[in-house]
Amino acid sequence: MAKEKKLVEAITPMEEDFAQWYTDVVKKAELIDYSSIKGCMVIKPAGYAIWERIQRQLDERFKETGIENVYMPMFIPESLLQKEKDHVEGFAPEVAWVTHGGMEPLQERMCVRPTSETLFCDFYANEIQSYRDLPKLYNQWCSVVRWEKTTRPFLRSREFLWQEGHTAHATSKEAEERTIQMLNIYADFCEQVLAIPVIKGKKSEKEKFSGAEETYTIEALMHDGKALQSGTSHNFGDGFAKAFNIQYTDKDNTLKYVHQTSWGMTTRLIGAIIMVHGDNSGLMLPPKVAPTQAMIIPIQQKKDGVLEKAEEIKKNLGEFRVKIDDTDKSPGWKFSEQEMRGIPIRIEIGPKDIEAGQAVIVRRDTREKINVSIDEINIKVKEILEKIQQDMLQRARSHMEQHTFTAVTFEEFKDYIENRQGFVKAMWCGGQDCETIIKEETTATSRCMPLWQEKISDHCICCNKPAKALVYWGKAY
Amino acid sequence: MAKEKKLVEAITPMEEDFAQWYTDVVKKAELIDYSSIKGCMVIKPAGYAIWERIQRQLDERFKETGIENVYMPMFIPESLLQKEKDHVEGFAPEVAWVTHGGMEPLQERMCVRPTSETLFCDFYANEIQSYRDLPKLYNQWCSVVRWEKTTRPFLRSREFLWQEGHTAHATSKEAEERTIQMLNIYADFCEQVLAIPVIKGKKSEKEKFSGAEETYTIEALMHDGKALQSGTSHNFGDGFAKAFNIQYTDKDNTLKYVHQTSWGMTTRLIGAIIMVHGDNSGLMLPPKVAPTQAMIIPIQQKKDGVLEKAEEIKKNLGEFRVKIDDTDKSPGWKFSEQEMRGIPIRIEIGPKDIEAGQAVIVRRDTREKINVSIDEINIKVKEILEKIQQDMLQRARSHMEQHTFTAVTFEEFKDYIENRQGFVKAMWCGGQDCETIIKEETTATSRCMPLWQEKISDHCICCNKPAKALVYWGKAY
Repeated sequence: MAKEKKLVEAITPMEEDFAQWYTDVVKKAELIDYSSIKGCMVIKPAGYAIWERIQRQLDERFKETGIENVYMPMFIPESLLQKEKDHVEGFAPEVAWVTHGGMEPLQERMCVRPTSETLFCDFYANEIQSYRDLPKLYNQWCSVVRWEKTTRPFLRSREFLWQEGHTAHATSKEAEERTIQMLNIYADFCEQVLAIPVIKGKKSEKEKFSGAEETYTIEALMHDGKALQSGTSHNFGDGFAKAFNIQYTDKDNTLKYVHQTSWGMTTRLIGAIIMVHGDNSGLMLPPKVAPTQAMIIPIQQKKDGVLEKAEEIKKNLGEFRVKIDDTDKSPGWKFSEQEMRGIPIRIEIGPKDIEAGQAVIVRRDTREKINVSIDEINIKVKEILEKIQQDMLQRARSHMEQHTFTAVTFEEFKDYIENRQGFVKAMWCGGQDCETIIKEETTATSRCMPLWQEKISDHCICCNKPAKALVYWGKAY
Repeated sequence: MAKEKKLVEAITPMEEDFAQWYTDVVKKAELIDYSSIKGCMVIKPAGYAIWERIQRQLDERFKETGIENVYMPMFIPESLLQKEKDHVEGFAPEVAWVTHGGMEPLQERMCVRPTSETLFCDFYANEIQSYRDLPKLYNQWCSVVRWEKTTRPFLRSREFLWQEGHTAHATSKEAEERTIQMLNIYADFCEQVLAIPVIKGKKSEKEKFSGAEETYTIEALMHDGKALQSGTSHNFGDGFAKAFNIQYTDKDNTLKYVHQTSWGMTTRLIGAIIMVHGDNSGLMLPPKVAPTQAMIIPIQQKKDGVLEKAEEIKKNLGEFRVKIDDTDKSPGWKFSEQEMRGIPIRIEIGPKDIEAGQAVIVRRDTREKINVSIDEINIKVKEILEKIQQDMLQRARSHMEQHTFTAVTFEEFKDYIENRQGFVKAMWCGGQDCETIIKEETTATSRCMPLWQEKISDHCICCNKPAKALVYWGKAY
């Protein structure tokens, strides 16, 4: 028991210090390790396997809508980065610069891509000639670098993995539709696969992507009441097309600029999974994204027939991702490890169970113990995993609802932000000054203007002038 | 017809200029495009889809042997790169150096990984404490950078995609076994999936990897008789372990150094597919790696029922990767495109075929036309794709056998290298001087000492001293 306690006690309770709890889980669940490069992490097998499952399921959804994958170079010449004015201002301060190739200084320095709009635009300028070449629906999976000052595993690191989609369309309408289509795919993926409910909305001018006409976002609420921007979809209009001269000959034989979009999701999603679902025993993975869905833990495993039965059960569960923990650790220690790693269920099987023709399934989320007949274990595991997936979404949804507040006066607003943890819904005049004042006085930022607008008052929460939009505000990662 | 000719004529015949033929195929089959960064390429959808199929099938084979995927940072601090003497000498002259992060100069410059041995070693030094932590069987999929002077798409580019496996073992024997195991997986993958036969062997001291104790390689023979190193597997012994101090406490309670391996395959394999299977009509993809396995081309597609029948056939072929070309191009043009892109079969279906209840399948490799009953099309397509896969391997094998020569005297050797295209088998004394002389006089290099050694003479082909090994020699990419 001493040892088992040690493993669990290694995690700081989240009520005590949420940031430390997060770091502890990330380390103890063996998702990452720190590296010799400050701000860059090593993603270990347990962490990378989650990313592989995210990647595969997201990629399938992209391809169903006609997206194709490509690969662009990781370097951007300085002159190319500078072509779009807002874009370079947004990214130049935080890129890593390559100045030498081999022994020789480069004629022009290049940055490691912080994002690849400029490369895609340069490519599209050559590739697109006629309306027949449109739309272009490309995506790439790669790593990008942003030289951040403060970093946290998954949430903000100097290098991270992501996908970036870049599309080019004949019309403004088609670009806007694709922007919203990808936002919906992101939201649906978060809810259905990661069991994370999100608010879909539009970013303010101040918060939008450097060079975009409109930025749409999905915002999720973490356990500590902070918001996490979990995916963004940008409509560039024809701004980049004009900067890079991407024109096509339309059916009417006139030259027109294309309209572009880009959209991305990152390894940050793993941070979201941790902070939405985790608890003081460690990680908690939704079944659809769990690399291992069930851990079979033999009890008194040296007794005749126990390991054989465990193997038999594993074989029956061939359609699921199942492992057996047959190490020489104690069952209690194995339970703690399975919980720490967030494996959705464990299956306990010992001599008494075998005699009774049953096994005990324990849910990671509720710790409920369910006796199941070994004959029926396949169907039961399927049911229980589906139930866990649904319940996890439901719990996260309840948490978000309970932590979403509506403020009509600035006093209320400040009170919610200071004393409650969560989103605050409040009206806004549309002015950047008010965003600045609110941030200075409360540290909250405008997260988004939700797609489903409602009117909760006529006046801006800050300046009292006529309101233009409902905004979700919150402290954010 | 003029237009169709144009597409085909765009390819330089390989007999005329093989290098130009290669470049033409790469461009016309839309595998890559050049980028603004000299020596870096854009991998377009048709090229990247091949890489995705290589990646997925290779990754499955790795995982079956217990390999897990991880992700290491893309940067290596200069001091880390310098820890292993041979390694830094091999790579430092060709790395890209990052000197600034954001607006500030870095305290220590970092290179973009040319390969990640040093990062894995740094990680393992912390991660491995006890014999219980061994073996470590990690792999990563990523891009690496080597600042080459001359570049060619897929074959040698400044940035390329690859996988790099890095394992750590308790014993020398286990490391050697893993090195050979991965070599065998590579060879089997090339033969069974890419339909490319290879020679498995060991590299000479001169040709081995910087820092390795032994380097094993698989060498394939291209259409023009040049060799292409297609995958390598290295046994590091405990050299890196000593440089990075990677020690574990063994069962007997003594500290021991681990023994390591690394092994990699790259997007170069796509170059191999082109140069082993392609012809003057373009690319030719083995069915197992072809993103599209069959292209249905409707004839007189505006006639009633033709497109519907094409759709019906596509639906019946649900287990294969099938597309319909229903664009407004002429059938002849579509045939040329399907051939250029290397799609293994096309299925022609027109009003007369429908009336006869049949379709015409045309093989890309032999151009054989096969009338098949629509009712049986699923089983026929399966048979034909399997046959193509086998025949492609068989043809490539015959080509390699016909272009492998045995030389006993240096005169014979020079004659083969100069006047025939292919591998030359000849005995070698083991001296680097002879390798140097042979290279200077013939431009051929020692490709490998095959695992299956035979003795074709007692004397070194070059110096006439007693021979130590049979070597495959050849001009190489």
